[in-house]
Formats: sequence, C-alpha cells, structure tokens
Amino acid sequence: MREAFVDELESVFADLAAIAGKVRIAVSGATESLLTGDVETAESVISADVEIDQAREHVEEKAFELLSLQQPVAGDLRTIVAALRMVAELERMGDLSVHVAKIARLRVPQRAVPEQAEPTIKKMAEIAEAMSGKVAEVIATRDVEAARDLVGDDEEMDALRRETFRQLFAQEWTHSIEAAVDLALLGRYYERIADHAVSVARRVVFVVTGEAER
Amino acid sequence: MREAFVDELESVFADLAAIAGKVRIAVSGATESLLTGDVETAESVISADVEIDQAREHVEEKAFELLSLQQPVAGDLRTIVAALRMVAELERMGDLSVHVAKIARLRVPQRAVPEQAEPTIKKMAEIAEAMSGKVAEVIATRDVEAARDLVGDDEEMDALRRETFRQLFAQEWTHSIEAAVDLALLGRYYERIADHAVSVARRVVFVVTGEAER
Repeated sequence: MREAFVDELESVFADLAAIAGKVRIAVSGATESLLTGDVETAESVISADVEIDQAREHVEEKAFELLSLQQPVAGDLRTIVAALRMVAELERMGDLSVHVAKIARLRVPQRAVPEQAEPTIKKMAEIAEAMSGKVAEVIATRDVEAARDLVGDDEEMDALRRETFRQLFAQEWTHSIEAAVDLALLGRYYERIADHAVSVARRVVFVVTGEAER
Repeated sequence: MREAFVDELESVFADLAAIAGKVRIAVSGATESLLTGDVETAESVISADVEIDQAREHVEEKAFELLSLQQPVAGDLRTIVAALRMVAELERMGDLSVHVAKIARLRVPQRAVPEQAEPTIKKMAEIAEAMSGKVAEVIATRDVEAARDLVGDDEEMDALRRETFRQLFAQEWTHSIEAAVDLALLGRYYERIADHAVSVARRVVFVVTGEAER
C-alpha cells in the first residue's frame, strides 16, 4: 500500500515537472514572438496553453484520487496539498506567457518593445525562462539548494522591473503611449511569472524539509 | 463524528466569508485613497493586509486538521480542497487591493487618475467592491444563483478594461506617461480582483452542486 502510494506521488511530481517544462517553452515562445513580431510563434503559444490546462486537470484528478483512496496524513497529506497548489501556480505561469504572446500579436507586424527598452525586456525574459527551467529541475530532483537559489533570481527580476519604470518615467522616453503601456504590462507579466516560480520552489522546499520558507 | 465535521466545515466557510468581508473593505479603502489622494487611507489598506494573510493561514490550518483527522471522502473532500483554493484567491484579492493603494501612495499629494479617466476607474472600482461584497454573501449563503450573477459583473468589468485602453490609445490622451502606466496597471488590478471573485463564486457553485462551472 505504502509503496504504491509513494509511486503515485512520484508520478504526480513527474507530471508537475513536465508541466513546468511546457511553461518554459511557453515563456520562451512568448518572448520570441515579442522580440521578432512573429505572429505564428505567438499563435502557437496561445493555442498550446490548452495542453497546460489539461495537464493541470489531470494532476488535480490524480491528487484527489490519492487523497480519497489513500487517506494520507501528516507529511504525505501536506505533500499532496502542496502539489495541488504547485499545479495552480504553474498554470498561471502559462496564462501569463499567453498574455505576453497576446501583446506581441496585437502589435504585429510591428514589435511591441521599442529598441530603448529591448535590453531590459530581454533580460527579464531570460530570467523568467531560466526560472521556469529551474522550477522543472527543482520539482524533478527536489533539490532544496537549487530551490533556494530561485529567490536570488527573483530579486534580479524585481530590480529589472524598477528599471522599466525608470525608463518609462525618464525624460528620454520618446515612444508612444501604446509602447509605454505595453512595457508596463510586460514588466508586470514577467515579474508575476518569476513570483510564481519562487512560490513553486518554496513549496518544494516545504515538501522536502517540512518547513515553510518565508 | 459526522455532525462535528459539518460544524467544523461550517466554521471554515464562516471564516472565508469574514475574509471576503475584509477584502471588500480593502478594495473600498484602496479606491478611496486612489480617488482622494489620501495617504493615510492608503497606508491603512497596506498595513491591514497582514490580517488577511493571518486569516488565510488560520483557514489553511483548520482545513489540514479536517483533512487529517476526519479523512473525508467524495463531496466532503472536494469541499475542503475548494475551501483551500478559495482562501488563496481571497488573499490575492487583498494583495491586489494593496497594489492599488500603493499606486495611490506613490502619487500623493497628486491623484494617480486624471479627470478624463476617473469615471471609468470609479466604475471599475465600484464593480470590484460590489463583487467582493457579493462573494462574502455567496460564501455565507451558498446561493448558487447569486454566484452565477457574478459572471455578468465580470463581463462588465472586461468591457471597462477595454474602455481604459480606448482612452489611453485615443488621440485625446494628453496626460503624462506616468498617468498612462498607472491607468494600465490599475485596470489590470481591478480586472484581476473581479477574475478572482468569479473564481471563488464558481467554487461555491461546485461545492453546492458538485458540478464545475466553466
């Protein structure tokens, strides 16, 4: 019984890692469409999101089954509840990538990000993509140190977000209101992707150590 | 045993309704600070958020206790898991109110919203506050019809969000980049408050009817 339970739990974590992998691809595609103005890439990110949603439902059903058939207590119970939360956060990361892709699509054949802001957005996107990849790793390996490292990445993201505001509010901003609004929202979306990545990583730390990270 | 369980579950729902009540106060205060530029109101929303966070932790602990001590199955299990999700959504609504209050605080002694955009933001804020109040009601009464009504409010919110973009991107926008960015982000925050309200209401429908609302 116990062994079967551990196997089932392992398979839930494998599913979570696979979803995080899909999220990384979504973040990467969304950014590519944003920086190139390629509408097909944007469309593919938007239409692939349904796979993340379905994978989420699958994990939720599995988790419910484990809860009702195995009646876990203590650590096992907390692990399954943590998995339910992680899958919700991963799905949000996918949704936020779709928001980025939709801004890209809205501006086709132009590119939403003016040259002046490109380095900052590129850096934010790189961090968001790297964090999504690390989250997949952390879920698969339950590596507490790697999970804690994500907090540092998030601080860098917050600094870049402030940098977007500095650019927007400086005298030298000569671009349109559209570009300003896009940049403000893009900054918000990438920042939220990073927040969710940290939150998933914290839940992995909790699952392994039994202690909440604050 | 069963009776004690039902009582405990009832008390979790009473806690959720109380949190939704606090969220309504936060949305209302955040909007007030935004429209008046009153820094003390903004500060009080920001500092009161810790109460929502603590109330969330309390609900989570209670739900864990119910899960591990009572080992519920079927509908009871789904109800407790739904409660865990609802409390996470309610906490996010509180966080989003804090974001609104922080924009208000940032612009003191000015007001973040230019006169031209005030009617739209006022309307969005009214809907967000009303939806938070309805969510408290819906949780307390488990009224499925009232829960379904919230979807209509959300559609109105989405229309207002589009209206903010129309204003921002029209020729007659003569305000600063700051004001444009504030308006774009405020629109996003109020829209997200409404999204979470709908999501909580859907979970109430699910708890009562056993069927997911899509």
